[in-house]
Amino acid sequence: MAEKKKDRNRTIDPAALEVLARTEGSGIESAYDRYLNMQPQCQYGNTGICCTICIQGPCRITKKASKGICGAAPYTIVARNLLRHVLGGTACHSDHGFHITMVMKEIADGHPGDYSITDSAKLKMVAERFGFPTEGRPEQDVLKDVVNLAMEEFSRLDKKVYSAWLEKTIVPERLEKAMECNIMPNSIHKTIAESMAQTHMGMDADPVNLVFQSLKTALCDYIGMHIATDLSDILFGTPTPVVSEANMGVLEEKMVNIALHGHNPILSEMVVKAARDMKDEAIAAGAEGIKCMGICCTGNEVLMRQGVPVLTNFASQELAIMTGAVDVMVVDVQCIMPGIQTVAECFHTKIITTIPNAKIPSSYYVDFDETRAQEKAREIVGIAIDAYKQRDASKVSIPQVKHKVVAGFSLEALTDILAAVNPDNPIKVITDAIDSGELAGVCLFAGCNNLKVIHDGSHTAIAKELAKNNVLLVATGCAAGSYAKLGLMNGDAVEEYAGEGLKAFINRLNEANKDKLQDKLPLIFHMGSCVDNTRAYDLVTALAQEWQMDTPKVPFVASAPEAMSEKAVSIGSWVVTLGMPVHVGVMPPIPGSPLVDGIALQIAQDVYGGYFIWEEDPAEAAKKLLGALQERTWKLKVHKMAQEQYETDAISKTW
Amino acid sequence: MAEKKKDRNRTIDPAALEVLARTEGSGIESAYDRYLNMQPQCQYGNTGICCTICIQGPCRITKKASKGICGAAPYTIVARNLLRHVLGGTACHSDHGFHITMVMKEIADGHPGDYSITDSAKLKMVAERFGFPTEGRPEQDVLKDVVNLAMEEFSRLDKKVYSAWLEKTIVPERLEKAMECNIMPNSIHKTIAESMAQTHMGMDADPVNLVFQSLKTALCDYIGMHIATDLSDILFGTPTPVVSEANMGVLEEKMVNIALHGHNPILSEMVVKAARDMKDEAIAAGAEGIKCMGICCTGNEVLMRQGVPVLTNFASQELAIMTGAVDVMVVDVQCIMPGIQTVAECFHTKIITTIPNAKIPSSYYVDFDETRAQEKAREIVGIAIDAYKQRDASKVSIPQVKHKVVAGFSLEALTDILAAVNPDNPIKVITDAIDSGELAGVCLFAGCNNLKVIHDGSHTAIAKELAKNNVLLVATGCAAGSYAKLGLMNGDAVEEYAGEGLKAFINRLNEANKDKLQDKLPLIFHMGSCVDNTRAYDLVTALAQEWQMDTPKVPFVASAPEAMSEKAVSIGSWVVTLGMPVHVGVMPPIPGSPLVDGIALQIAQDVYGGYFIWEEDPAEAAKKLLGALQERTWKLKVHKMAQEQYETDAISKTW
Repeated sequence: MAEKKKDRNRTIDPAALEVLARTEGSGIESAYDRYLNMQPQCQYGNTGICCTICIQGPCRITKKASKGICGAAPYTIVARNLLRHVLGGTACHSDHGFHITMVMKEIADGHPGDYSITDSAKLKMVAERFGFPTEGRPEQDVLKDVVNLAMEEFSRLDKKVYSAWLEKTIVPERLEKAMECNIMPNSIHKTIAESMAQTHMGMDADPVNLVFQSLKTALCDYIGMHIATDLSDILFGTPTPVVSEANMGVLEEKMVNIALHGHNPILSEMVVKAARDMKDEAIAAGAEGIKCMGICCTGNEVLMRQGVPVLTNFASQELAIMTGAVDVMVVDVQCIMPGIQTVAECFHTKIITTIPNAKIPSSYYVDFDETRAQEKAREIVGIAIDAYKQRDASKVSIPQVKHKVVAGFSLEALTDILAAVNPDNPIKVITDAIDSGELAGVCLFAGCNNLKVIHDGSHTAIAKELAKNNVLLVATGCAAGSYAKLGLMNGDAVEEYAGEGLKAFINRLNEANKDKLQDKLPLIFHMGSCVDNTRAYDLVTALAQEWQMDTPKVPFVASAPEAMSEKAVSIGSWVVTLGMPVHVGVMPPIPGSPLVDGIALQIAQDVYGGYFIWEEDPAEAAKKLLGALQERTWKLKVHKMAQEQYETDAISKTW
Repeated sequence: MAEKKKDRNRTIDPAALEVLARTEGSGIESAYDRYLNMQPQCQYGNTGICCTICIQGPCRITKKASKGICGAAPYTIVARNLLRHVLGGTACHSDHGFHITMVMKEIADGHPGDYSITDSAKLKMVAERFGFPTEGRPEQDVLKDVVNLAMEEFSRLDKKVYSAWLEKTIVPERLEKAMECNIMPNSIHKTIAESMAQTHMGMDADPVNLVFQSLKTALCDYIGMHIATDLSDILFGTPTPVVSEANMGVLEEKMVNIALHGHNPILSEMVVKAARDMKDEAIAAGAEGIKCMGICCTGNEVLMRQGVPVLTNFASQELAIMTGAVDVMVVDVQCIMPGIQTVAECFHTKIITTIPNAKIPSSYYVDFDETRAQEKAREIVGIAIDAYKQRDASKVSIPQVKHKVVAGFSLEALTDILAAVNPDNPIKVITDAIDSGELAGVCLFAGCNNLKVIHDGSHTAIAKELAKNNVLLVATGCAAGSYAKLGLMNGDAVEEYAGEGLKAFINRLNEANKDKLQDKLPLIFHMGSCVDNTRAYDLVTALAQEWQMDTPKVPFVASAPEAMSEKAVSIGSWVVTLGMPVHVGVMPPIPGSPLVDGIALQIAQDVYGGYFIWEEDPAEAAKKLLGALQERTWKLKVHKMAQEQYETDAISKTW
């Protein structure tokens, strides 16, 4: 490992490797170089025992200084830092959800601008979930009810009223658990404020209390994410299967290439539309047309709904610019490396920032005013066309690497595919396959890239091992980006990597849907951006409902092999709270407190049924994930046998 | 300085020094020992160039690594950390304000429990500030209007409606400035959430943007604080002059000693009342009675309103327990060193925590349910009486150090005192004294203790120098605690330390109020706890209104000589935004970015009129504060001369 850290080629993506090789010694720096420069990283920070919360500090726990100056024990410091991380993630997702809510409010208030309701069925479904009448009412009125509730989910102060979005999307046993542990949130903004206060100097010193508040905050993360996904679907359509391509080979030498980077479809959907409308302008400028392509979760959003190809994922965002073929990289929020601007300045590429609270010095700023969305989107595309004219052909070198991607698997789309096998009870297709042993369970791959491990390396190694062992795989975020780029999201990968059970299961779905699907189903089902992880959890809920049991019994695991951002920490925390084992492939700053570490690894399981697994080695991680699934399928079998025995007994008693 | 850091006697408080001397080598550790153990402190953290916001980090800026792994420049890292500090402070104050708002809501809703409106005049004043009708209306209805508005100040989502509490308490020019700079907040919780999102990995990289958002957030700190003070006054009474005592000599060997520590009067007012009611139980237990005494800002709250003596301030909170004479230390929120529990375990002292989000492992927890406030307060006093019985007389050693304190100077009380000189225009007593040169201006001392400098040392050194130079001094928080403990808050100190002008000014007030006041006015006017800093800013606003000018022209400065907590950072930030020079006596983690440092020191002045002064040396700090006042009084004189010239010209023209 020590040796590896001297090599900047910390990726298995052949396109990224090609760009890294070509730029070696050029002086154009990327995260891969900066990662090496940063070694060795501070071990106080790495293990969570550095506290900078007050300016009497910083305090670091050492042999000589076993507590902070205020007397804070390592467990307090680690737990407080953890809560602040969960807070960061929750605030981001809620910011995203709130932004979409505000656009929807404009529609509800009769000022839609360039936005409109795309998916009436989803609106109806969401409204009915909360008991709002829909029959015979104008769509705008129904929307108003949904939007008003969403706004309350952010702003509610009443401590006796709890989040409806959480209550109505989880099984009753989970709600009961949250109430029993006093972690059921009233609303998002209030919880964020109270958690921030709780981590202040001289506030909470109790690690268990702090961890529980982290979980309450993480549940707000779930709420913000679920709102974001539901409203995005209503606004732009619930994803359905779509065929596209991924990796840097999607760049076109003769076209205006626009990289869409960030998270929120509010911007990217409009740019995609403007690019389609402005083809003639591009041709007039000497290009053959305009091609949009995505990075990070914006990439996932527009892939899922518009079939826009994937350019790359988080770690390699700067490398995409180093191809010399990106004319504009337009960004909104989250996971935008400030480094892209410095790289862009070595090329003709324009970085366009668009959101008031996420700017980069020296970048070009277009204030993306949603009331003039198309006008602003056209302005962005116009800048791209102008930039294309400045492109230096001698600097262009596009790695010829790309793979077919079959994506678009919202839970609704997945259900539709399952319905071709069992129209009366689609979800039973999965539970039957698990009950029969054909499938070993389900695994969600999520999260980021983190150069502490080899880029895309852990994602793919674990996924292949699980596929071989017949685990049904779904993915979101930059994990999905890895699989898309490296050819694991198409039918060929099923042939190559799936175990017999998984292959049989997917082929049964292929067969049943052959008239309907454009292409064969993939090895890993793309469920969306990282904000869409609630889609995967809705699948857990559906499985639990079918089996009529609480979620900690569902043979479902999650894995974030290359977790990096605070959002990954908050997502991981609510997934654990809601009953799932969660593998994290990068050690979070927790081991500095064996107590907090113990809560994460063991006590969480005793209380919530979910727990964390820290494991950097992909082979070991795969074993542990399989072990966790086996434990649950075994218990499920025992439960089923007991149930059958009970029924047999009941029958014999009747006779 | 290096030499000093080997000596644990980092205080000038004789009581604290006595306890430190007595416990040397005893193995009972306090912050003074832990401070030494922590040396040397990390210079990356100290200068703000350590980033732990994502788990690809921690990143530290070095010669080899000039940017974080994501490409974040030092200015981004420093500005992001700064915003998180401001956020922590703002969240704390708003949590405090929200807690009081919720208690007031219960009263407004007709469920007052043991609370009631004490100050009808203040309720009327606050209601009329916002244009709510008061004449002929039941008090509860008026309260309902005020409480509803306060709740909106926390929860408002509408981006077109701005904070009323801010708008109605500052001069119009400041409001205009906030609007012009786009830092006028809509509400507290929304701003906290958006700021937290803005500091996430890959969000804002622009330091100016981040600093402006820090100021917007800091304005929410102001709002939360103003709400807390206004509602506390309505609930428990606006402070009026009161005579008491301060420092560890207030402990009584033969009484049950209850130390009230923390911030929020919701708890402490009830304990003080219960203690008064339960004298007989204490006598039955063998004591002569019960004595309450305060620490930190709870100490200030109950001193200001109830005349409860001050035990000590932040840095020495553990030393108070080491006297062996504290039976119970009951705490609520903020600035509670977790170290108190470990110290208490060496004595009979019981630490009682009371608030769900601020617990200390091993402490005794009483869930302070406001609907049963007296019952809970009596439970706490009962525990103290029981603990008294366990007190080990051989371990008791009370430093015989205490001073008379004249406190209770809310702006209303101060105005009342000024009115004895000028009943028609009380505030003109101050502006006249400044215009005539009798006073050199006004200085607010605020903030904490921080062992990076000598405890109470900077506070007192700067104050004495300013007093000598005829600056009118007001104080809050642990700064006020220093002055109370060390004898600067009484009439004798005026004789000893005040320059001729200041002496004349104070004696004029003494003379005019001699029939009304219980004692002579002090050298430094105690305006309350740290949450009450808005009282001091209301004084600035009153001065600006009298002079008919914007606040950056008012000869008023603020100083936090021993700043420690994030609250100090947020308070300092809004005071600068609202036009004041602010001295900070401990270097905040900013110099790692010369750009952000430059914004704080200079650009802030260009934009807002206020700016920071970093200066650890008290003598230098006093010079700089005096310089800042001189600049403003000089300009004021020029302005006045020009005005008079204009008027003379106008008169001659008329003739």
